[in-house]
Amino acid sequence: MTSVREVIVTPVAFPDPPLLNSAGVHQPWALRAIIQVRAADGSIGLGETYGDAPHLALLTRAASAIENLDIFDLAGLVAKIAEALGAADAPDRHGLTGDSTAAKTLARVVSPFEVALLDLQGQAIGRPIYDLLGGKVRDRVPFSAYLFYKWAGTDSWGPALDPAGIVAQARSMIDQYGFESIKLKGGVFPPDEEIAAIRALRDAFPGLPLRLDPNAAWTPETSIKVAEQTEGLLEYLEDPTGGLAGMAEVAALAPMPLATNMCVVAFADLPEAIERGSVQIVLADHHYWGGLRACVELAAICRTWGIGVSMHSNSHLGISLAAMVHLAAATPQLTYAVDTHTPWQSGVDVVSDPLVISGGAATVPDTPGLGVTLDEDKLAELHDNWWRCGIRERDDTAYRQSFEPDYVKLRPRW
Amino acid sequence: MTSVREVIVTPVAFPDPPLLNSAGVHQPWALRAIIQVRAADGSIGLGETYGDAPHLALLTRAASAIENLDIFDLAGLVAKIAEALGAADAPDRHGLTGDSTAAKTLARVVSPFEVALLDLQGQAIGRPIYDLLGGKVRDRVPFSAYLFYKWAGTDSWGPALDPAGIVAQARSMIDQYGFESIKLKGGVFPPDEEIAAIRALRDAFPGLPLRLDPNAAWTPETSIKVAEQTEGLLEYLEDPTGGLAGMAEVAALAPMPLATNMCVVAFADLPEAIERGSVQIVLADHHYWGGLRACVELAAICRTWGIGVSMHSNSHLGISLAAMVHLAAATPQLTYAVDTHTPWQSGVDVVSDPLVISGGAATVPDTPGLGVTLDEDKLAELHDNWWRCGIRERDDTAYRQSFEPDYVKLRPRW
Ligand SMILES: [Mg+2]
Ligand SMILES: [Mg+2]
Repeated sequence: MTSVREVIVTPVAFPDPPLLNSAGVHQPWALRAIIQVRAADGSIGLGETYGDAPHLALLTRAASAIENLDIFDLAGLVAKIAEALGAADAPDRHGLTGDSTAAKTLARVVSPFEVALLDLQGQAIGRPIYDLLGGKVRDRVPFSAYLFYKWAGTDSWGPALDPAGIVAQARSMIDQYGFESIKLKGGVFPPDEEIAAIRALRDAFPGLPLRLDPNAAWTPETSIKVAEQTEGLLEYLEDPTGGLAGMAEVAALAPMPLATNMCVVAFADLPEAIERGSVQIVLADHHYWGGLRACVELAAICRTWGIGVSMHSNSHLGISLAAMVHLAAATPQLTYAVDTHTPWQSGVDVVSDPLVISGGAATVPDTPGLGVTLDEDKLAELHDNWWRCGIRERDDTAYRQSFEPDYVKLRPRW
Repeated sequence: MTSVREVIVTPVAFPDPPLLNSAGVHQPWALRAIIQVRAADGSIGLGETYGDAPHLALLTRAASAIENLDIFDLAGLVAKIAEALGAADAPDRHGLTGDSTAAKTLARVVSPFEVALLDLQGQAIGRPIYDLLGGKVRDRVPFSAYLFYKWAGTDSWGPALDPAGIVAQARSMIDQYGFESIKLKGGVFPPDEEIAAIRALRDAFPGLPLRLDPNAAWTPETSIKVAEQTEGLLEYLEDPTGGLAGMAEVAALAPMPLATNMCVVAFADLPEAIERGSVQIVLADHHYWGGLRACVELAAICRTWGIGVSMHSNSHLGISLAAMVHLAAATPQLTYAVDTHTPWQSGVDVVSDPLVISGGAATVPDTPGLGVTLDEDKLAELHDNWWRCGIRERDDTAYRQSFEPDYVKLRPRW
C-alpha cells in the first residue's frame, strides 16, 4: 500500500491573449493551480485545475485532508474532501457552469486530486492512466482549431475582428497544428457577423466540420434564426442560449444538434436535460464533472440515452492536456474533436514534455501514469508570474470594462 | 505488459435443491461455467457464469478470441468478443431477462472474462479488485436470507410449502448465517398465501426488512392489491408484474418501492424505465449487465436519477460470490442487503477459500484480485458432475412438469 505523504498546491499564471467572448475579454494572465501529490515512495502525481482565489482556498483545505490516504482509495478521496469542505460553495469565476452548489464545488475540488492519484497509481503499476479508465480505444486524439475573435495583443496572433481575420487565424492555426475541425467562439458580434464568419470558414475550408459557440449570448428566438441560417454548415451549435428550457426550445427546431458545456455541467442536470431533449451532445470536462472517472460515468449515461460526447476546454497547461488525452483515449463515446486552448498558451508550460498536437491530433502516451513530468523551474517561473500579475480571480467583464467603460455583460445580448 | 496466454472454460454442475418459483422448480443440478484466464506470467484469473449449452458455445468462441490480449485492455476485450460473436444471440435459459438480443448476449459473454482480467490485474498490481472499481466504501457486505418455497429433497433443508415452513426455513438460515434482512421468492402460491407468509415472517422477525419477489407472476391489478395488503410490511416489492408498462402502473399506486431484475436488465431498458417511473430500485447483476465495471456505470445512472441499487443472484459458486462482494464494496449506491443463493449450495464450491457469510455479511477480502483460489480437484469433481448429470440447459418448467404433467408456466398466473 502506497499512501499520500505530502500535497503541494501551487498557483500559477501564464500570459493569455485578449480573447473575446460573451462575458468580456480574457485578462492578460490566465490562472491555474498545479497539484503535486507526493507518495510515500517518493513518486509524484500531478493535477491541474482553476487558479481563482476562492477555489485555491478550498484546494488547500482538501490538500491537508488527504494526507496518508492510500493512492488507490478514490472513494476515500471524495469522502475526505467532502468532509473537509462541508457546505463550502465557491463560485465558478468562469461564469459558465451556472449557479454554484456544494456538490459542484466538491466535484471541482476533487478533480485535480483524482487525476494526481490516478497518475500515482499508473506510475506504481507501470500503466498509463487510460488503462485505469477501461483501456485505450484510440491511439490518436483529434483536437479542434479553437478560434476566437480577439484584439491585437502582445501575442503573435494579431487581431481577428471580422470574417477575414477569423479565416486568417484559422489558416495560421491549421498550418501550425494540422487541425481537421474548427470551432469559433462567438457571442461577441451581432449574430449576422458571426454567421458571415462561419460562411467564410466554410468557403475557406470546405472539408472541415465547423462549430459555433456563442456562450448563451442569444435568446431562443435568435438562436432558432441563426440555426436556420446555418443549416448544413455546422457539425453542432454550442450553447446558443442559456438554460435547459431555452435550449429545448431551440433543439426542437434547429436543423443541427445542440451541444453544451453550460446547461449540463453536473449529474444533477442530466435528468431534466434528457426529459426536455435540451441537448444532443454534452461536452465532458473532468475539471468540473469531478474527475476522469466521473467523465467515464457521464459517457456511459450519454451512450445509454444516445447523446453525443465532445470535450470542453478552458485555458490550460500540459497536465490538463495529458489528462484530457487519457480520458479521450478511453472514451469510445467521444466522437468529436476535442477543444483545447493549447495554441493560445504560446508554448508556456509547467511540464518538460507536453503532449504535442500535430496533424490535428495528439498521440496517446503509453508511458505510466499521465506521461508528463513537472519542470520545477518552469513551475517556479509561473508561480512567480502569479505573485506578480496581481490577478486573483478571473473577471473577463471587468477587464473589458477597463477598456470600454460602458460594456455590460448581457446574456442574452441578442 | 502481461497478456493472456490461455483461456479454459469448464462447465460444472452442483446439486441444487427443489426450489420453487413462478417458472417451475429448480432441477437437481445447477449449471455454471468456470473461466480460467492464464496470463503470460503464469498467474490465473477466475470468472464464473451461466453453464447452459448455448452460452457455453459462445464462451468457447470468446475464449479463443482473447488470446494475447493485454490484461488491462478491457476495451479490447469487449471489441474482440463482439467481433467473435457477431450477431450471435443466445437465449437466456433462466427466463428472467426477457427477449434475447445480440447486445444482451454480448454482455453476458463478456462478463466472466472481464472478472477474470480484473482478477489478473489485481494480482499483477497487488491490489484487491475493489480498488480497480473506485475503492472500498464498506468493509462488510450484508446479504439477505433468500427464502424459497421448496419441496422435500435430498438436501437438509426440508420442505417449505406454507407460512410455517417459510418461517422455519428463515429461522434455520438466520441461525446459520446471521442474516438481518429477508427475501421470499414468491409467485408459487396464490397471492393470499404468500401475503400470509410475509405476515408470518413479520411476526417472527419484527425487526428485519422483508422483500417479496413473485417473478412477474401477477397482473398489474393483482400486484396493486398485494401491494396495498402488504403496506408497511415490505422494504420493496420485486417484479410483481412483467414489463415496464405494467410495473409503472403498479408503481404509481404501490405504497412501497418496486425493484426489478426482470424489466431493467440492460442499459437499453433504462430510458423507458425512467421515463415511465417503472421501478425505484434496480438489482445489479454483473453476470448479465456486462461485468463489474458495467455495474459501476449502472450505479452511476441510478445515483443520477435517484434510483436505489440492490443486487441479484442466481445459483452460484464462490467465484461469483467474491466478484459480487468486490462490486458491493465499491458501490456506494448499494444500500440494500445483497441476494445470494450461497445457503442453497450446501458447501459445494470450486474455490478452496470461499468468502464466508457470518453475522449476515461477508468481510471484503483485501488480498490481491478476487481473493479466492481455484481448487483443481473440486473443479474436476464438479466438471464430472456436469458430464454425468445430463442437464445441458436449465429448464425449471419441464422439470416441474416431470412431476406435475399438467403444470404450465403462466406469467401472469394470478
Ligand atoms: Mg462552450
Ligand atoms: Mg428477482
